[in-house]
Amino acid sequence: MKHSIATRMEHIAPFHVMKLLARAKELEAQGKIVVHMEIGEPDFDTPAPIVMAGINALDKGYTHYTPALGLNELRVAIANFYKSNDGIDVDKNRIVVAPGSSSALQLVCGVVINPGDEVILTDPGYPCNKHFVQIAGGIPTFIELDEQNNYEITLDDVKNKWTNNTRAIMLASPSNPTGVLIDTKTLDDIAAFAEQKNAYLILDEIYHGLVYDEDVKSFVGRCENVFIINSFSKYFCMTGWRVGWLVAPAEFIDSIDRLAQNIFLAAPTVAQHAALEAFQPATLDILESYRKEFKERRDYLYHALNDLGFGMKGKPQGAFYLYANSARFSSNSFQLAEDLLENINVAITPGIDFGKHLAQEHVRFAYTRSMEQLELGVSRLASYLK
Amino acid sequence: MKHSIATRMEHIAPFHVMKLLARAKELEAQGKIVVHMEIGEPDFDTPAPIVMAGINALDKGYTHYTPALGLNELRVAIANFYKSNDGIDVDKNRIVVAPGSSSALQLVCGVVINPGDEVILTDPGYPCNKHFVQIAGGIPTFIELDEQNNYEITLDDVKNKWTNNTRAIMLASPSNPTGVLIDTKTLDDIAAFAEQKNAYLILDEIYHGLVYDEDVKSFVGRCENVFIINSFSKYFCMTGWRVGWLVAPAEFIDSIDRLAQNIFLAAPTVAQHAALEAFQPATLDILESYRKEFKERRDYLYHALNDLGFGMKGKPQGAFYLYANSARFSSNSFQLAEDLLENINVAITPGIDFGKHLAQEHVRFAYTRSMEQLELGVSRLASYLK
Repeated sequence: MKHSIATRMEHIAPFHVMKLLARAKELEAQGKIVVHMEIGEPDFDTPAPIVMAGINALDKGYTHYTPALGLNELRVAIANFYKSNDGIDVDKNRIVVAPGSSSALQLVCGVVINPGDEVILTDPGYPCNKHFVQIAGGIPTFIELDEQNNYEITLDDVKNKWTNNTRAIMLASPSNPTGVLIDTKTLDDIAAFAEQKNAYLILDEIYHGLVYDEDVKSFVGRCENVFIINSFSKYFCMTGWRVGWLVAPAEFIDSIDRLAQNIFLAAPTVAQHAALEAFQPATLDILESYRKEFKERRDYLYHALNDLGFGMKGKPQGAFYLYANSARFSSNSFQLAEDLLENINVAITPGIDFGKHLAQEHVRFAYTRSMEQLELGVSRLASYLK
Repeated sequence: MKHSIATRMEHIAPFHVMKLLARAKELEAQGKIVVHMEIGEPDFDTPAPIVMAGINALDKGYTHYTPALGLNELRVAIANFYKSNDGIDVDKNRIVVAPGSSSALQLVCGVVINPGDEVILTDPGYPCNKHFVQIAGGIPTFIELDEQNNYEITLDDVKNKWTNNTRAIMLASPSNPTGVLIDTKTLDDIAAFAEQKNAYLILDEIYHGLVYDEDVKSFVGRCENVFIINSFSKYFCMTGWRVGWLVAPAEFIDSIDRLAQNIFLAAPTVAQHAALEAFQPATLDILESYRKEFKERRDYLYHALNDLGFGMKGKPQGAFYLYANSARFSSNSFQLAEDLLENINVAITPGIDFGKHLAQEHVRFAYTRSMEQLELGVSRLASYLK
């Protein structure tokens, strides 16, 4: 039989970095020490109190389904955290627990987007977002960000991209891959503009806890046409547990419940019980120490890469990424990433994993490895690129 | 702002049983003892060796992402289980671990179905299947099953429903809600017919372990145009862990990998490590004792319901459901389910949760409660319905 694969798969690229990761593993199997600056996952293990809560949940036999919208106690705990951490009142009934922010994004796209609707995204941006839009039948359009505008979006960018078919704008703050934060005034303006158009702002705050130079509050509760996505994966270091959440306008909760029942039933039970411990003071102390370490790494790596000739206009405020112009070294950033991996065993992510705009001239460095590892990587880069 | 919800949500019904469940909780809060015969989840907790493996995995700090296709050890263990349990050789590279069989179904639909393709399902059937087809842009069509044909599908049914646009047929064996098994010869014929048409059989085997009167082998490996879905939820009693798997033709694995990376990243890590223990002899002994208990419950409930006047032609061979004709008691099975819940605190699932065909004349009984509970339910029914 001649197999035929659905045509959508022609347009769903792999993460190109996976090819580099596979090669990195081969090199490691040969005894090479690879410096990993490509990984979008904290190197820190899940804090011990969370792990212990997971163990206790299993001990108690919490192995059955939870409601599709999540454990009530966890929805309450998330609402309480918005109060204590951000000073924001939010009704726990507007909070939906999902199996990771990926599923949260799929739920939001499913209840917001009609076939043919346009959704404005950014290029560069998180590569999966366009697929969530497309799965719901939507058409992604892109605002191009680059060093010229310091990767900062403006209301005018949004207005220029807006058409009669625009249904939503999907942004991330801080952003992957740029680490750039969108200021609250700009978000206010964009949300208000969208509201005039009966449209929505879908805001990814999964790196909300990882901001280094200012005290930024969540955008939850500022406008009524906003969906907020968050996750226990990044700040809370719970990647493998698969649990995230979203905050939706109250009118959408019933639809989200139905869609969640149908497409994934519920988030993992043990992860939800463990996540209850994520907001406890002892856990937050650990997470704040991790955040300080990320800040040190960012400060070190930002200056070191600048000194090497990687172009970055401003120091990004959050996430754990630096998105750098690599045109000085190569006009093909995937080729550059392959060269660095082969020749000095340094792994980074090529720009093409985040879009098309100037992608061949950019690479992403993740500072999800120890200072010692980052210093080793920088010294290898310094010798090779000089 | 006047909110508008995507129109697809008008066509995604809630599980109607959720309304009954909510009412059951209210009754229980008032001190009533509700007999739950509506729940599609084993009452048995996850076997202790699996729970212990989960605890050990957390102890060891296995909290980071796994590959999108799943832990290699688990893919190997699943392949080995097909060998030891079913006598089937299957390449572990064709096995994909997913966060529950729901996600597995979404992956399969994503790589198989093009917009406009028709997919043949059964009515009654698992209610979410049509949504997975629709999310991929496909058009579900339905073969109607009922007591006339003992809920058994035939090749002629498939041929009669086939059009030039048919891309796949999606079946379950044993089936939810009917518990009916499809014999291997019929599946062979359907798969061969589909192959002539360059089409696919998508076969849900999530109740494969729960067959009571014969030793049925998995359909894995019999034809090359078949996708098999399975899960750790039902036979292995791991519902809340959210881990399932699929077996796909080799040509589709790369596409499934890319789609999985983009839409959910990976199944929960702790669940994958725990599931490694599911195939160990000590665990299988426990699971077989559960299966024996399910068989006793089925035999008891089948005869008891027959005696009460619920119509069932043959005794279903698998799953943990009895799908019964309730026309003798009401021409509106949802109303009947509400009456039984209000008046005698017995919860069952109305036929409308499984389709449209004769749905008002049928209800589903789940035997996922102890014999004592089932006997209590039957005695209440006997008093009320006589």
